[in-house]
Amino acid sequence: MNPRFARLRLEQTIDQAITYLRQQLSHVETIYYAYVLDEEQRSLGVVSLKDLVKADTTKTVADVMTGKLFKVSDTTDQKEIAHLLSVHNIQAIPVVDRQGCMKGIVTADDVIDVMREQSTKDIQKVGGMEALDGPYLETGFLAMLRKRAGWLVILFLGEMLTATAMAHYEHQIEEAVVLALFIPLLISSGGNSGSQATTLIIRAMALGELRLRDWWRVISRELTAGIALGCLLGAIGFLRIVIWQAVKPTYGQYYLLVGWTIGLSLLGVVTFGTVAGSMLPFILRRCGLDPASASAPFVATLVDVTGLVKARFR
Amino acid sequence: MNPRFARLRLEQTIDQAITYLRQQLSHVETIYYAYVLDEEQRSLGVVSLKDLVKADTTKTVADVMTGKLFKVSDTTDQKEIAHLLSVHNIQAIPVVDRQGCMKGIVTADDVIDVMREQSTKDIQKVGGMEALDGPYLETGFLAMLRKRAGWLVILFLGEMLTATAMAHYEHQIEEAVVLALFIPLLISSGGNSGSQATTLIIRAMALGELRLRDWWRVISRELTAGIALGCLLGAIGFLRIVIWQAVKPTYGQYYLLVGWTIGLSLLGVVTFGTVAGSMLPFILRRCGLDPASASAPFVATLVDVTGLVKARFR
Repeated sequence: MNPRFARLRLEQTIDQAITYLRQQLSHVETIYYAYVLDEEQRSLGVVSLKDLVKADTTKTVADVMTGKLFKVSDTTDQKEIAHLLSVHNIQAIPVVDRQGCMKGIVTADDVIDVMREQSTKDIQKVGGMEALDGPYLETGFLAMLRKRAGWLVILFLGEMLTATAMAHYEHQIEEAVVLALFIPLLISSGGNSGSQATTLIIRAMALGELRLRDWWRVISRELTAGIALGCLLGAIGFLRIVIWQAVKPTYGQYYLLVGWTIGLSLLGVVTFGTVAGSMLPFILRRCGLDPASASAPFVATLVDVTGLVKARFR
Repeated sequence: MNPRFARLRLEQTIDQAITYLRQQLSHVETIYYAYVLDEEQRSLGVVSLKDLVKADTTKTVADVMTGKLFKVSDTTDQKEIAHLLSVHNIQAIPVVDRQGCMKGIVTADDVIDVMREQSTKDIQKVGGMEALDGPYLETGFLAMLRKRAGWLVILFLGEMLTATAMAHYEHQIEEAVVLALFIPLLISSGGNSGSQATTLIIRAMALGELRLRDWWRVISRELTAGIALGCLLGAIGFLRIVIWQAVKPTYGQYYLLVGWTIGLSLLGVVTFGTVAGSMLPFILRRCGLDPASASAPFVATLVDVTGLVKARFR
């Protein structure tokens, strides 16, 4: 926000207004938008320099100003400001306090700066780390390491539960080692489908396309998507085993059973991953946390652990 | 780009210029910046409406114009334009063709629009899918499914190689099932560290902070980071096994050997994941492909497969 903005008064004539703006030239950020204030500094409207140049010089500021004014407060999210500026095709927007007194303006070029930084942080969070505060090569090595190590350790501790969960199936794995071969395939498929869903939802939330109350629309859509994607991967997995067996027998006499087990497990884990991944940002936001914490690796870990806990090797 | 921009001529007086701008008001996007063109439509400089309002009316456009002008071509990347606008604090930038003839202007509010879309696409790619073309809820169900299924199937086919790679170790797994329990932990740790490195590098490339020739600086930095992070996770993994064994014996008499195997494997897979993840965007760009294709799930899959191929269960 920049507090140095151009001001006008309602009763000024166009000539007076232009002269008055000239005096303000050196200490305001822009004179292209001048804000009409009353005695209490409340904004009554805006006049663009274009309007003044165009207008008949005998008119007053009140005649040419636009009373309908988009305003933001100093707590408004930068993304929302960017949205207002781009949708309404305006170059600057006034910032007002609770009493309606004007505090400053935000211009489009300021917003570009902030948006670039914000997008970088969002992308780094999706990649599973704390956002860096500056450019990659200029960030100190230890500072960068700290930002990466934090999430890496959290994910590692979470993923440790997979070993615990798998320990319960140790006997089944001993009996059918062939199924153990497919564990990485199963859990990564769940993780990937979850990453996709989470990433879509986080971004849609950040852009204001989705609100908390939309969770029901999202879950029905993602459940359908999850089942469809799960059937697709399940079918490929099944065919892969059956065809592989025909070419080069690997899976023994129960290869059809192995095929069905893997195929149905894929359907289950992809559906579960998709639904869990899409709901996680809603749950985080509902708890007052940042939905963007649900990074791709975070969702993958969650789905790995819960997927394994539910898995049954028969 | 908007071809409707305000024009002035070098020899016009300030009064003439303001009158001339008034005539253009209805058919240009902005009169806040007017471009001074010669007969061949080559841009000689720029005059802001602010300069005109401030200037002595006896002067000419040539006296008040700024000859040093940032220009872009119609092939310039939107991100670069955003960078120019925000760094130099300007609201509009002229677009010129190869002959230097002015074709139009790009204004800051146009750039905000494009940047929002671009960031959304970048984030969706990091999440492991093709970018949607519109808002989440407005994208048709089948169109969305196609964009997600494509990458999901590619990742699935890639991940299938894990089953093939693991088949080679089937006998070792039968002999030491306890090691198989740690496979998800190992491969996800490699995948997570790779996701972090890839995400950092892709974004730094998109912002123009890194170029192809910087790969050497990156690899030395990431190798050190990978070893440091690998030691950290390896130590946690080792301690977890030793402490768990003390509390509740699970890993048999060779628990120290299991601890060392897992600890060292973690060091290896995290170092490998970090280096591979950071180099992949360079390799993709070197091959003329979009570095952003190296999504977090893509890198995770690559690291899973290559990590397993190299793994040795002794």
